[in-house]
Amino acid sequence: MTTTATVAAGLQEELRERFGDRYSTAAAVRAHHGKDDSHHPVIPPDGVVFAQCTEEVAFAVRACARHGTPVIPFGAGTSIEGHVQAVRGGISIDMSGMNRVLAVRSDDLDATVEAGVTRLQLDRELKGTGLFFPVDPGADATLGGMAATGASGTTTVRYGTMGDNVVSLTAVLASGEVVRTGGRARKSSAGYDLTHLLVGSEGTLGVITELTVRLHPVPEAMAAAVCAFPGLAEAVQSVVEAVQLGIPVARAELLDATAIKAVNLYSGFDYAEAPTVFFEFHGSEADVRAHGAMIEEISRELGGSAFEYARRQDERVRLWKARHDAYPAILALRPGCHGLTSDICVPVSALARCIEETREDMSRATMPWGIVGHVGDGNFHAVFIIDPDSAAELAEAEAINERIVRRALAMEGTCTGEHGIGMGKIGFLGEEFGAVGVAAMRAVKRALDPAGIMNPGKVVG
Amino acid sequence: MTTTATVAAGLQEELRERFGDRYSTAAAVRAHHGKDDSHHPVIPPDGVVFAQCTEEVAFAVRACARHGTPVIPFGAGTSIEGHVQAVRGGISIDMSGMNRVLAVRSDDLDATVEAGVTRLQLDRELKGTGLFFPVDPGADATLGGMAATGASGTTTVRYGTMGDNVVSLTAVLASGEVVRTGGRARKSSAGYDLTHLLVGSEGTLGVITELTVRLHPVPEAMAAAVCAFPGLAEAVQSVVEAVQLGIPVARAELLDATAIKAVNLYSGFDYAEAPTVFFEFHGSEADVRAHGAMIEEISRELGGSAFEYARRQDERVRLWKARHDAYPAILALRPGCHGLTSDICVPVSALARCIEETREDMSRATMPWGIVGHVGDGNFHAVFIIDPDSAAELAEAEAINERIVRRALAMEGTCTGEHGIGMGKIGFLGEEFGAVGVAAMRAVKRALDPAGIMNPGKVVG
Repeated sequence: MTTTATVAAGLQEELRERFGDRYSTAAAVRAHHGKDDSHHPVIPPDGVVFAQCTEEVAFAVRACARHGTPVIPFGAGTSIEGHVQAVRGGISIDMSGMNRVLAVRSDDLDATVEAGVTRLQLDRELKGTGLFFPVDPGADATLGGMAATGASGTTTVRYGTMGDNVVSLTAVLASGEVVRTGGRARKSSAGYDLTHLLVGSEGTLGVITELTVRLHPVPEAMAAAVCAFPGLAEAVQSVVEAVQLGIPVARAELLDATAIKAVNLYSGFDYAEAPTVFFEFHGSEADVRAHGAMIEEISRELGGSAFEYARRQDERVRLWKARHDAYPAILALRPGCHGLTSDICVPVSALARCIEETREDMSRATMPWGIVGHVGDGNFHAVFIIDPDSAAELAEAEAINERIVRRALAMEGTCTGEHGIGMGKIGFLGEEFGAVGVAAMRAVKRALDPAGIMNPGKVVG
Repeated sequence: MTTTATVAAGLQEELRERFGDRYSTAAAVRAHHGKDDSHHPVIPPDGVVFAQCTEEVAFAVRACARHGTPVIPFGAGTSIEGHVQAVRGGISIDMSGMNRVLAVRSDDLDATVEAGVTRLQLDRELKGTGLFFPVDPGADATLGGMAATGASGTTTVRYGTMGDNVVSLTAVLASGEVVRTGGRARKSSAGYDLTHLLVGSEGTLGVITELTVRLHPVPEAMAAAVCAFPGLAEAVQSVVEAVQLGIPVARAELLDATAIKAVNLYSGFDYAEAPTVFFEFHGSEADVRAHGAMIEEISRELGGSAFEYARRQDERVRLWKARHDAYPAILALRPGCHGLTSDICVPVSALARCIEETREDMSRATMPWGIVGHVGDGNFHAVFIIDPDSAAELAEAEAINERIVRRALAMEGTCTGEHGIGMGKIGFLGEEFGAVGVAAMRAVKRALDPAGIMNPGKVVG
């Protein structure tokens, strides 16, 4: 397989000379790096560099900058808004070889990792330290990708998003220069917040190569509980009330009847096929009992079933693995199909109404669908399971999704709680931030990437 | 008093016509707006606009932009790094008239306020709601100023900084256009994080006019405890161990013997003149007892005194009022003098050594000094009490402060944990972020303020 014509022969040569076998233009490699876990079509890059250190990333970016060639960072390829597609060709930089945990500092409750370390790898490396890293998107994403996407997950209601848990970053800018956005102090008021500017920038302002992240002490006690509700509204309301009362729930995950059916089939559970919330409580033994009892009472008043507790570590792990697999589980309901996933997030006071109206929208869809949500944050996903060969299904799902997003924006919410903009949500950016906001973002983009080589066609278009 | 020659007569006329009595060029008004609570000299603006709404701020900025005249936002004037001095002349925009609490939403645990609302005003307005806003710099600063400075305070160890507690902002950009940086969802991955870009930007990227902030439920129980230690090192170590063990202390404030003496005199206490930590615990009655007992045990092993508890609301309020007044109390030890205050923040594992070495530096100073600190965050302030007429004392304090900052940077800390850069710390920005980091910040500044009219001479110089 030869490369496309969009990349200068000189650049290809430079990369081949520097990286040898770790620069690939093989069709399968390029195709793998031109798609993520979504319905967005494959758009392969012209070549893929497998980087092993920050200086190699800097070399590749400098080479691309000299040739005006796009640079697209690639972590685990698990994003779902079309973040890695090479819409203008260019070189993908695969970060999976940068997978060393550089330091775990128990005394400072932080760790420094290379960007290609995945969340499950970090979990494993933290075993026995008494510390954990909380942010857990469903997939086994890389930490660099999670930061670039502004990811969050099931524990965000208690422990925050990637933005809340990244202390500082090392990144390669469009010039090929390396910046470190801060030290390891727990807070700083020095200069502009480059850390948060890069978090969520999806590779359009720089390639994140290292991260220092916050760790949290493993709680003395943890218990998960499963509760089925008569309807979606009641399930949502149980979580909203818990959050409004300030009960520090550690996780509160909604699965609609379809998602429960999918999880039962995919992960071997036998939950009643009803709207269900998976809760988790963290703290002292007394806290866990008290928080559980308070929320069980709230739930009972809303018609919820008696709490089915998972207290043992292996039970809890199995439960949350099933929740994390809910997306592939839902897709497996219709083999060979893709997902198109909404990701809105609204103020919690609006959530019950928002989900109810979304359910009504979805009920008119001609393809199967399910709803899962990090409802403690006001964030949920309506997943459309679409036939990849049906333009009509894609158009229908996109039209419904548009309604869902507009509703969220009207409620002072956001078009994306945790998946990012990618290619998929560029059209909503102006509706969310107005022309002035988008112009400000574009000015920042031009300032840091004047030639527009960093993951072009994403976030700000 | 006539205005200086640096502002065009046309601009003066436009502002007078639009704002009438709410545009002032009186000498006293200008002098008041040309200084903060620090040792930095008064540099008055050419005129002061007293704005009452976002559109008025936008009008003033547009007028200044047309004339290429600097714009300097002014909140309560309580910053301490020279944030408001009109180093290149220009118009100060006084935000204190924008002091309406626009909405308190108990169901969403948030509030929207105009930028001139002060933290104590917000405290008062939240009485009876069961909610509170945690960020508490010593002074009664405006929320807008606190966001612009990236402020934090005594509760940051538990509830976070301004950055952690601002949901979204409304701001007037250098063009005079108004941007809203987000909605009210608890999280969002949409576009570049303009909220965090403006937090800590000290008026150099825009004028913050409204903020939506997170509120927190008032804990069921709260108790403060005072503990004296044989030395500074032991006092610091008690907090470091508590943080490392993950005990969720709500406040942990260090006062050295000098600070205690100052607080005794200023606020009528009679604490032993020894290094002392003021702790606070929040949670259920059981949590508060448990956390207090754990930390009292840690403290006792380090030679700390028995905990002296303040459980009643009025006792607690009096205690924390005294702590918040520690800065004026220390200055009052030498009447007529100014403060020069370090503000470094280091990883907690380095804190005990850092404070000990700082104490040694300070012990060679010829003027009086004291140390107070938010030690749970790794942040502390060495306060030099200097004679405003002595250039020698200023030079001596600045030289020692430089040593203190360099030590913090060598420990992967920051030159400012919460006071910001202002004019005072511009020289350290390059040492903290390197040439690439500062160049990136300057590129962002030029992108959003090409004519350089927004609070020039601050942050990035």
